[in-house]
Amino acid sequence: MNGAQSAIQTAVDAGVNVCFANPGTTEMPLVAALDSVRGVRAVLGLFEGVCTGAADGYARMSGRPAMTLLHLGPGFTNGIANLHNARRARSPIVNLIGDHATWHVAADAPLTSDIASLASPVSAWVRTNEGAVTLGRDTADAIHAAMSPSGHVSTLIVPHDAQWEDAPGAAAVDAAAAPTMPEEHEIVAIAEALGNGAPTAILLGGPALHRRTLEAAARVAAATGAELLMDTFLSRVERGAGVPAPERLAYFPEQVLETLGRFEQLVVVGTRSPVAFFAYPEGRSSLLPEACTALTLAGPEQDVTGALEALAERVGAPASATGAPAARPERPTGALDIDSLGRAVAALQPEGAIVMDEAATSGLTYFMHSQGAPPHSLMMLTGGAIGQGLPCATGAAIACPDRKVIALQADGSGMYTLQSLWTMARESLDVTVVLCANRAYRILQFELARAGVAEPGKNAMSLTDLSSPVIDWVSMSKGLGVPAVRAETADELVAALDRSLAEPGPSLIEALL
Amino acid sequence: MNGAQSAIQTAVDAGVNVCFANPGTTEMPLVAALDSVRGVRAVLGLFEGVCTGAADGYARMSGRPAMTLLHLGPGFTNGIANLHNARRARSPIVNLIGDHATWHVAADAPLTSDIASLASPVSAWVRTNEGAVTLGRDTADAIHAAMSPSGHVSTLIVPHDAQWEDAPGAAAVDAAAAPTMPEEHEIVAIAEALGNGAPTAILLGGPALHRRTLEAAARVAAATGAELLMDTFLSRVERGAGVPAPERLAYFPEQVLETLGRFEQLVVVGTRSPVAFFAYPEGRSSLLPEACTALTLAGPEQDVTGALEALAERVGAPASATGAPAARPERPTGALDIDSLGRAVAALQPEGAIVMDEAATSGLTYFMHSQGAPPHSLMMLTGGAIGQGLPCATGAAIACPDRKVIALQADGSGMYTLQSLWTMARESLDVTVVLCANRAYRILQFELARAGVAEPGKNAMSLTDLSSPVIDWVSMSKGLGVPAVRAETADELVAALDRSLAEPGPSLIEALL
Repeated sequence: MNGAQSAIQTAVDAGVNVCFANPGTTEMPLVAALDSVRGVRAVLGLFEGVCTGAADGYARMSGRPAMTLLHLGPGFTNGIANLHNARRARSPIVNLIGDHATWHVAADAPLTSDIASLASPVSAWVRTNEGAVTLGRDTADAIHAAMSPSGHVSTLIVPHDAQWEDAPGAAAVDAAAAPTMPEEHEIVAIAEALGNGAPTAILLGGPALHRRTLEAAARVAAATGAELLMDTFLSRVERGAGVPAPERLAYFPEQVLETLGRFEQLVVVGTRSPVAFFAYPEGRSSLLPEACTALTLAGPEQDVTGALEALAERVGAPASATGAPAARPERPTGALDIDSLGRAVAALQPEGAIVMDEAATSGLTYFMHSQGAPPHSLMMLTGGAIGQGLPCATGAAIACPDRKVIALQADGSGMYTLQSLWTMARESLDVTVVLCANRAYRILQFELARAGVAEPGKNAMSLTDLSSPVIDWVSMSKGLGVPAVRAETADELVAALDRSLAEPGPSLIEALL
Repeated sequence: MNGAQSAIQTAVDAGVNVCFANPGTTEMPLVAALDSVRGVRAVLGLFEGVCTGAADGYARMSGRPAMTLLHLGPGFTNGIANLHNARRARSPIVNLIGDHATWHVAADAPLTSDIASLASPVSAWVRTNEGAVTLGRDTADAIHAAMSPSGHVSTLIVPHDAQWEDAPGAAAVDAAAAPTMPEEHEIVAIAEALGNGAPTAILLGGPALHRRTLEAAARVAAATGAELLMDTFLSRVERGAGVPAPERLAYFPEQVLETLGRFEQLVVVGTRSPVAFFAYPEGRSSLLPEACTALTLAGPEQDVTGALEALAERVGAPASATGAPAARPERPTGALDIDSLGRAVAALQPEGAIVMDEAATSGLTYFMHSQGAPPHSLMMLTGGAIGQGLPCATGAAIACPDRKVIALQADGSGMYTLQSLWTMARESLDVTVVLCANRAYRILQFELARAGVAEPGKNAMSLTDLSSPVIDWVSMSKGLGVPAVRAETADELVAALDRSLAEPGPSLIEALL
């Protein structure tokens, strides 16, 4: 057994058996080990951002880490943006980066760079392996770190010679620590605060808002009169008919301040007190009003569901909670715009759908319209690094082959990682991409206006407009092996969605807004 | 004047007036300043790797830096791979990265990350600006660092509030230091070595092998009997009929060792003694044979041309040197393969063409066939980070609007930054893309064989084969606004090249190998 085989065997033994990869020469023994060790599924991405975003989507839906296999510093850097999103989503991921042979690093060959410096900002755990003898152990430690409570990005840098040299064998991964519960007195204090008569909201967030988590929170709310809120951007939330539906905080700071202005207490669960996405002149970072006190029940690394269930018991909550009523819009007809787009998807999405929303401004109404749709999972852009949607949908489809994945994808961010479409085609993934083509970086046009630029000049227009030339997404999608149609009316979108959702495999609908 | 305007005015005053950009909210004042300050050309890339690679190509052909304008850590990271190539090419580039407002960083908002840690591995100069008052000065220092002898990547991190706050005005850029000449005694020593009768080669490399540089080297060779070699991967080399043509070192270590085995002395000019691109078991880093002594005339940061001209004088070289004879292949007919592809391009490329070669294995014969073509500039992949070709061609076309650019582009690496095609269309750039479609990561299939994997397994095949599904480059290119045709025979390629080279504006030819 060589070092590469010891690493892959260690991963497979720990149940880490999917590898999203774009390898090069310094990963060849690891590539060979993906075959000589049995039980791994290797998935090629034609760009590293596809691999890391797919690993994020896989983790969000499976709760388990995938491996990525990436080529030295330059290959890894192409995956950093989606690792940034994964870090914000607290998704467990194990990155394996091949490096030059230990004795070749000093030669400063063309591909040499400081990989640890590149990896550290997006990795909770980084290690450079020092040889084949410890490669199994280092892989086990990387997996252990990734699977620590609430998830982490682990990055193991693996020298080329450590992969090809003899190794003692696979290593066992230490069991992950269980997430901690808040102390009893902390739960008591929050229960008391919930009973003090002050207007109170419970803010939910964190790695996953599972149905059980939401039901515990809703039971607390039912018993205490608190209102339920949730973060603007969530890794994954369960929702739909019968599932409790917290109010989602809006995007702009003034909107969040207005919402929180209704409350004197904010109980924070699985997340932290809200901060502004961006700063503005005369603005502020914290979006907690001065008159509102934040109380933390449990951080994202703690047992959020357990904490809420203990709190529910403490406040004498009812045994069950009411979820959102079943209600979905009629199939829209007429003009295709943001509203009819949201209605169309909400009207047609099947039960158990996984929806990845990176539609940016084009997705503004979908969230509202889909509240009472059949139960589904919703994933969002967590770290603001655009280009997450198509890769994340790819990984989710691999994690959940029996569920339909719907990617609501803005055109500007879709261009960042459009290579994902090819992987969807190659792997026959059951993904319907609704490509929302407004032919602009619309959010930036809003931001220009907020920055006081009433009439953008030639350069500012050039940097925010995508209409010249028009991007033909149907042509691009077909070029990457994914069947595609264009919808210019709501009726055409409904018909296209109907067809796409009824058929297995990937397809793309360019919705012209 | 605000800080953003002081930065852009400083750049324009220094002649840095092209900005390859993909900005976001934290760059909005800089975006506005691209209009309120006169004289800047802003070019949008739909992915940051397009921007940084274009800045590299622009620098290689103009000798001057362009700006890039990129969005926080995650946006910047998407440009790192091509900055890695630019660093290896010693191309001057000035990156401006917007960051959160100084008072907002501590809030750790979703897009916050350690930008300096990400930037350092690819930047010779990194600074985080501390406010509007010093933003003009910092911009001037960034430009000065970029324009230091032989070029550097400079990265200036600009807080959002420093952009919108009042600033004192533009700053002047200190004059760049002249590159140093070797000491007289060093030139004398090398002249003596060249006369000692030992078989000697002169190895050329560095930021640019201009015609004058090559002619000085050829004069030394003519006087001393030394042979001329050049590095495997060069930022830019002038070549063609009448231009001295050093022998190019090959890619694999054993090939380089064989070539250098002919010599007892290696005079190194503008580069360093060769090292292996990758390490192999029982291999070595240095490719200088034990029996060969390396002597450095001038490093890449020195006055390479001046040093060679002084050496020519010292060895009593003739006043002029013989260049490559004019000779170009016939237009090929019949099957389209690597050889006929190389012949076709060499047969048709016009005088003054700029050729960017990222064709990888598909470009293997082009170099040989084009040696006697009309004078042209050739750029190559310098840092091994694939995805450089299309962006670099984009930037070269903006630097040299009167010259035809030909991008010889492999399909695997072309997929990394195919968004470049859209920028070529938007800016009506005169680029002919010859997309070499062998539908595989062929070099990795070679490397698998070198690693002893005689019969790749299912996963190894999956990670190196691009044929399922087939990528339809004609469809993709049209989708991005660039007219495209497919060539399946040499005759079809010749006809398509004829048409494309006769017309202005971008076009793509998918050459099916």
